[in-house]
Amino acid sequence: MTQVADFEQMWRDLAPVGRSASSGGYFRQPWLSAELELRAWFREAATARGLELEEDPFGNLVAWWGPDTGAGKVLTGSHLDSVLDGGAYDGPLGVVSSFAALDLMRSRGVEPTRRLGVSAFVEEEGSRFGRACLGSRLAVGATTWADARELTDRDGVRLGDVIEGGESTLLDGVTTYVELHVEQGRGLIDLDAPVGVHDAIWPHGRYRYDIAGRADHAGTTRMEDRADPMLTYAMTALAANKQARLSGQRATFGRIDVRPNGTNAVPSHVTAWLDARAASDDALAALVAAVEKQAADRAGRDGTTVTVTPESVSGEVAFDVALRDEIAARLGGVPVLPTQAGHDAGILQDAGIPTAMLFVRNPSGVSHSPYESAETADCLAGVEALADALTGLVAP
Amino acid sequence: MTQVADFEQMWRDLAPVGRSASSGGYFRQPWLSAELELRAWFREAATARGLELEEDPFGNLVAWWGPDTGAGKVLTGSHLDSVLDGGAYDGPLGVVSSFAALDLMRSRGVEPTRRLGVSAFVEEEGSRFGRACLGSRLAVGATTWADARELTDRDGVRLGDVIEGGESTLLDGVTTYVELHVEQGRGLIDLDAPVGVHDAIWPHGRYRYDIAGRADHAGTTRMEDRADPMLTYAMTALAANKQARLSGQRATFGRIDVRPNGTNAVPSHVTAWLDARAASDDALAALVAAVEKQAADRAGRDGTTVTVTPESVSGEVAFDVALRDEIAARLGGVPVLPTQAGHDAGILQDAGIPTAMLFVRNPSGVSHSPYESAETADCLAGVEALADALTGLVAP
Repeated sequence: MTQVADFEQMWRDLAPVGRSASSGGYFRQPWLSAELELRAWFREAATARGLELEEDPFGNLVAWWGPDTGAGKVLTGSHLDSVLDGGAYDGPLGVVSSFAALDLMRSRGVEPTRRLGVSAFVEEEGSRFGRACLGSRLAVGATTWADARELTDRDGVRLGDVIEGGESTLLDGVTTYVELHVEQGRGLIDLDAPVGVHDAIWPHGRYRYDIAGRADHAGTTRMEDRADPMLTYAMTALAANKQARLSGQRATFGRIDVRPNGTNAVPSHVTAWLDARAASDDALAALVAAVEKQAADRAGRDGTTVTVTPESVSGEVAFDVALRDEIAARLGGVPVLPTQAGHDAGILQDAGIPTAMLFVRNPSGVSHSPYESAETADCLAGVEALADALTGLVAP
Repeated sequence: MTQVADFEQMWRDLAPVGRSASSGGYFRQPWLSAELELRAWFREAATARGLELEEDPFGNLVAWWGPDTGAGKVLTGSHLDSVLDGGAYDGPLGVVSSFAALDLMRSRGVEPTRRLGVSAFVEEEGSRFGRACLGSRLAVGATTWADARELTDRDGVRLGDVIEGGESTLLDGVTTYVELHVEQGRGLIDLDAPVGVHDAIWPHGRYRYDIAGRADHAGTTRMEDRADPMLTYAMTALAANKQARLSGQRATFGRIDVRPNGTNAVPSHVTAWLDARAASDDALAALVAAVEKQAADRAGRDGTTVTVTPESVSGEVAFDVALRDEIAARLGGVPVLPTQAGHDAGILQDAGIPTAMLFVRNPSGVSHSPYESAETADCLAGVEALADALTGLVAP
């Protein structure tokens, strides 16, 4: 069956790109060598299929199939970048499955009555410039180029010095978006199903904690004479975890930057990032406020000061109900569940483009990790489901 | 008074070297540009005084004055490197004061009957290659070159690729060492004295904590499904602080390295360094064991694993009693106190060279920090005390 062979070939082509030999995880930050190689692969995949390639000034890519009849266009796809030391599936599975679904539709003789595009949005993870879904935000205008071009990566490189920027017309005339993604939790494992549909994305945000203390000698300064921001940080990280655990929400401190970060010096400054997610906008606000209050209380005892800056906050996204019901029905009543992860699909839905998400079972239940996985049989079930959903949209 | 002018001129010459415009702190890691500039300054100071310069294969420097009569040589000095974002005084005050003391002795017509050397030992802080007092350890043979050349800095640069290495003869014939240092606590503030003498160095050590967990998605992974090493770290940092506070000892986590250090990923690995100090070897061992036990207990609850590796542990150093008493008496009964900070003086004393330490009041009480300070009047009192002590040793 050529569908299997084609999917597996694409997967083999991508497998080594940006993979760390030591961890087995992927480092595919935008506009660095691995991700540039993935873009080149995307262009080749489009050309080999005779698709029309379009790239916007932010680096978002679309490969178009079928005539532009003036009817609303349908977009599918995902992203190619990864978190630092991430898994193989988060992002690329959606792009590869989109090409594979298009191949399958062609092999079945589907004649599209409107354009279908396979897309790859850039910097979905925010792993380099710190703004998640940056490419789709720029494409829909939710983030302006004037704002984005000043973003810097960890080496101080400005986004404006990496890409030209400008205006995107990639989404002009797009009236539907469908994204397929690997599942990032255990929902389909528990339900024993290979494929599901998301109905919503939890509200979530990133909050930068700047904790200022006073540098001191780690040996000679009495414990009671210190103003150590590491202690404020440590208590805040534990408090965030406990708060989220007790309420069934999510709160994570996964990134920290310590100054001067020397073994024999009490730090002068700790910067840390809280990632928080909750089932409703109100619950998220309450979670974030509770963590901030505990940080401020502890800072009072440590003699430090805490400043909290929200870097990006996304409200709840409810995917288009009619589209979701149509796809779920076509797929024979697959499970419908929310996700706690942000996606380009959420940005497009928020921008008024009716959007749906399919997701494929992940036997590890783990994501943003080298342990992320998916069985080939489940991936192929995902391709089939995506092809069926897209066929219903472009050749009803 | 030329002594004041000379001291102040030397201080002005050093003030801008390696100073951060943003923090006001110093970055003087060995063999990087700022520290190389300080070495050049040292050579010029030696040459301008007609002293004989000697440099060993590890980069330790001595400027010799007076005839080599075969009688035991006397060494004074300190170091020029700093911790990351450190103060101006820790190290350089001792070197500048040594040159100034020599100038003062000459102006008084002192005729040395044995050689007096002004020294600057390299990498005293261990800020680049992680081994405190590396230069003096190599000079006395406490660390072998075969071991040291494999040390790497944070960029992976091997010490063996930075310097040639070999054998040091710098300390041949040296029978006394006197180091002057800025105080790193509040002892002299409380006693209202400009200068004191140290009788001992607390035992102290650096212990690397490797905490392994499992990378996961910060949004989709339920709190109870995680193995988050950041939590184990945070509890350990708080436990170390509490343990030291209750027992009047010191325990600090000032350096941390998180993998992958991404906002939306539960970390896979946290490496952190414990700096611990206590009044006796037994008390240090008990402190370190207590922190390690609390880390292991927490790791059991977090589903993580902790491995603790001692990177450098120094037992208690008692400075030479006869030398200390002689100097303290000559200085008219100045305060005698222990220090919690490691020094090259401790390495030389441990190697069997009778050693003494003078220290100068620090009105901020703070060290390893841009806030470290000293009044010029106190510094000049330190120079005078050092000149008196050295005169007693080389021209009794």
